[in-house]
Amino acid sequence: MISVAQARARVLAGLSPCGAETVGLADAWGRVLAAPVVARLTQPPADMSAMDGYGVRAEDTDPPRPLAIVGEAPAGHPASVTVGVGQALRLYTGSVMPAGADTVLLQEDAAAADGIVTPSAPQRPAQHIRRRGQDFTAGDTLIAPGRRLGSRDIGLAASANHPWLSVHRKPRVAILATGDEIAMPGEPVGPGGIVSSNSHALAALVRAGGGDPCLLPVARDDAGAIAAAAAGAAGMDMLVTTGGASVGDHDLVQQGLARHGFTLDFWKIAMRPGKPMIFGRLGDTPVLGLPGNPVSAFVCATLFLLPALARLSGLHADPLATEAALLGAPVRANDHRADHLRATLARDSQGRLVATPNAKQDSAMLSILAHAGALILRPPFAPAAEAGTVVDIIRLDRLGL
Amino acid sequence: MISVAQARARVLAGLSPCGAETVGLADAWGRVLAAPVVARLTQPPADMSAMDGYGVRAEDTDPPRPLAIVGEAPAGHPASVTVGVGQALRLYTGSVMPAGADTVLLQEDAAAADGIVTPSAPQRPAQHIRRRGQDFTAGDTLIAPGRRLGSRDIGLAASANHPWLSVHRKPRVAILATGDEIAMPGEPVGPGGIVSSNSHALAALVRAGGGDPCLLPVARDDAGAIAAAAAGAAGMDMLVTTGGASVGDHDLVQQGLARHGFTLDFWKIAMRPGKPMIFGRLGDTPVLGLPGNPVSAFVCATLFLLPALARLSGLHADPLATEAALLGAPVRANDHRADHLRATLARDSQGRLVATPNAKQDSAMLSILAHAGALILRPPFAPAAEAGTVVDIIRLDRLGL
Repeated sequence: MISVAQARARVLAGLSPCGAETVGLADAWGRVLAAPVVARLTQPPADMSAMDGYGVRAEDTDPPRPLAIVGEAPAGHPASVTVGVGQALRLYTGSVMPAGADTVLLQEDAAAADGIVTPSAPQRPAQHIRRRGQDFTAGDTLIAPGRRLGSRDIGLAASANHPWLSVHRKPRVAILATGDEIAMPGEPVGPGGIVSSNSHALAALVRAGGGDPCLLPVARDDAGAIAAAAAGAAGMDMLVTTGGASVGDHDLVQQGLARHGFTLDFWKIAMRPGKPMIFGRLGDTPVLGLPGNPVSAFVCATLFLLPALARLSGLHADPLATEAALLGAPVRANDHRADHLRATLARDSQGRLVATPNAKQDSAMLSILAHAGALILRPPFAPAAEAGTVVDIIRLDRLGL
Repeated sequence: MISVAQARARVLAGLSPCGAETVGLADAWGRVLAAPVVARLTQPPADMSAMDGYGVRAEDTDPPRPLAIVGEAPAGHPASVTVGVGQALRLYTGSVMPAGADTVLLQEDAAAADGIVTPSAPQRPAQHIRRRGQDFTAGDTLIAPGRRLGSRDIGLAASANHPWLSVHRKPRVAILATGDEIAMPGEPVGPGGIVSSNSHALAALVRAGGGDPCLLPVARDDAGAIAAAAAGAAGMDMLVTTGGASVGDHDLVQQGLARHGFTLDFWKIAMRPGKPMIFGRLGDTPVLGLPGNPVSAFVCATLFLLPALARLSGLHADPLATEAALLGAPVRANDHRADHLRATLARDSQGRLVATPNAKQDSAMLSILAHAGALILRPPFAPAAEAGTVVDIIRLDRLGL
C-alpha cells in the first residue's frame, strides 16, 4: 500500500496544464490566467482630485481669502486653464488637476457665491489628490499567471485596458460509470438495481474544480461495452471511471480499457474510505479509476481528482488546501490507514472553527456525507485525541462540493 | 448616518427570492434549491452485500465446513434461489442478499474450488450487509430548500431518482456605470478619461453571488442619458449603479432615475471606505447605488450586494459569513465609522489564520485590493488592538471575489 501523499504526487506528476485560449473579459471570471496581465496604461492617468471641491494654490489660503472661480473641469473634461494667484477651478471627484493648483479645497470647507469661493481655513498643499500612477504604471505586471480570476482581478484587468484575457482551457473530463445494476435518474430501474449517483456527483465536482464534464453512457458489466464506452474519452484531458476497481471476478474496467492499450497502475492506498484506486493512461489520456461506493468515490475525488483538476487548469496554488480546526469530540487512535472522518462544522464562543466527527462513518451513507461540513484528516497511526485538539480538515461547505 | 447592519437590514427587507424554475439535474449544481428533494425510492432498495464474497448461513460456519456454491448473483442480477443448510451463493459488492443467507463470508476469508467454498473461520451473523433503507427511505426529505447545491447534493438527488430539480431562478442584475470619463476596455479613452473597472468587477461579483449580470451601456453625465440607460433595467431583479452617488453638482443618477419615478433612500453609512449609498426602487426594481471609487464600490458590493444576491437567490444561509482570525499587526483605535481593512492572510505555526492589514489602505488602489485575502472588520469605536487579537474578517480569497 502507498500513502495518500504518494498517490497524489504520482497522479499530479502525470498531468500538465491545458493550453491557453483567448476569452472576452466578461467570460474570464473563474478562469485560470495563462499569461500575465500587464498594465497598458498608467492609473490614474494624471494627478486627479479625489473629492468634490476646488483646485487652488495652498499659499493663497493662508490666510484664507476670496478666490476667483475661473472655470470648472468635470471628470472627463480637463480644463486647459492654469490656476493663477488668487484663482480657483471647480473640480469633482475624478477631475484632472489643473496646472498651477497644488491642492484641493473641499467644497464643504469653503463658501462659494457669485464666482467667488472663500476657504474657511488655511489648506495644506497636496491634499485630496490621487497622484498619476499611484495605482499602477504602464508596463507593470498586475496579475501573474496561474491565478483563478476573481471579480477584483476582472476589475483590475479592465482598468488596465484589457478587453481580452488569455486563460487556460477548461479541462475536459470524461466520466464513465459501469455496472449492470446502474440506472440513470428517472429511467427504469431493474430488479436489484440502483440509480446512478456517482457519475452525477463527479460531474458536478468536475465543474466545482473548474472543469468541463462529459458524462459517457453507462457501460454494462462487459469488457467489450466498457471498451466501447471508453473510446468516447479520446481527446479528453482525463477519464474518470467509477466502480469496477475492486478485486472480484466481475472487475472488468481494467479488462475493457486494456483493449485500448491501457497502461495500468493499480494502487492500494493506505486510506479509509476508498482503498483501491486505478491510475494509468489510455493513449494520451490520463485515467483515474475511483471506487464504486459513493462515499469512497467522493473522498477519493476530493483527495485526487480535485488536485488533478487544479493541475490541469494551470493553477499554481496548493492543489489541496487544508485548514485547522478544533476537534469537537474525542477520537480513537488511528490504524495504519489515513482516515477521513465526515464532520459537522461550528464556531465556539471565541469564533474558532470546531469540527465534530459524525457518529456514523458508514461509507455507504450519501445522505450523511451530503450534509458534512468537512473531512477531518487523521494520519496513519495518529494517537487518540481529546476534544479541543487542533486537527487538519478539508472544508466541504465551500467550493461547491 | 446609519450603521452597516442597519443599512444591510433595510436592503434585505426590500427583497424577496426569485421564483422557481425546473432544471435538469446536470444543470442544478451551484443553484439554490426551491423545493425539497424527497426520496422517490429506498436506498439500498434491499439488503445488499457490501463486499465480494459468499452469502451463507452463519451457523453453517461454526465450526467451518465446506459449503456447496449453488450459484451467483452479480450486482443487478438478484438470484431467485434460497440459500439452504450447507449452501453458499457467490456475491459481489452491491449484490442483493439471497433469501436464507444471513451473513457475507468475505472471499479472502475462504478457499473456493470445484463448486465448494470453505470458510477459514466461523463467521458472525449480519456482517458486511448494507441494510435496506440504511441510507434513506422513500418519502424522506433529503435536501431542504434554500441550500446552494454542491456536488454531494447532486449525487444524493440522483440516488433518490430525481432527473429534474426545482431551483430558484438566478437573479438578473443590471449594472449601470455613469460618467463622461468612462471608456470600455480596448475602446478609445478621451483626455482625462479612465477605463471602466467597476462595472466589470461588479458583473463578475454578481456571477460569484449566483446571479446573471446585464451590463447596461455606459451613460454619459446627463440626466436624460441616465434615464434612457436605466430604462433597460425594466424586468430585472435589481439595478446596480456605480458613480454619481456623491453630493457634487454633477450627481445626476438620482435626477435621471427620478424621471422613471424612482423612490429614493439616500444613506450616509458610518463606514469606510464607501460612505454614501443609494437604495430605492425604480418601479418594481430595487436599485442599489454604489460609490464610483473602485475600492469603495467593491467593499459596498461585498457588504450589501452579495447579501442582496443571497436573498434574491433564495438562500437561507447567513447572507454574509464572517470568520475569526488573529491580527497580524497592531491597529489603532477606530473612529465612529466601521472600517474594512484590506489584509493579507497567512497561517501561523499552529495553523491558525492570521490577517495582517496592508500598510496602504488607499481606497483608490485596485491593485492592492485585488491581492487582499480578507477584509478585517473594525466596528465603530473599536479600541486599539495588539497583534494576536481575535478579529472578525470577511474572506475574499474564496467565493470568486
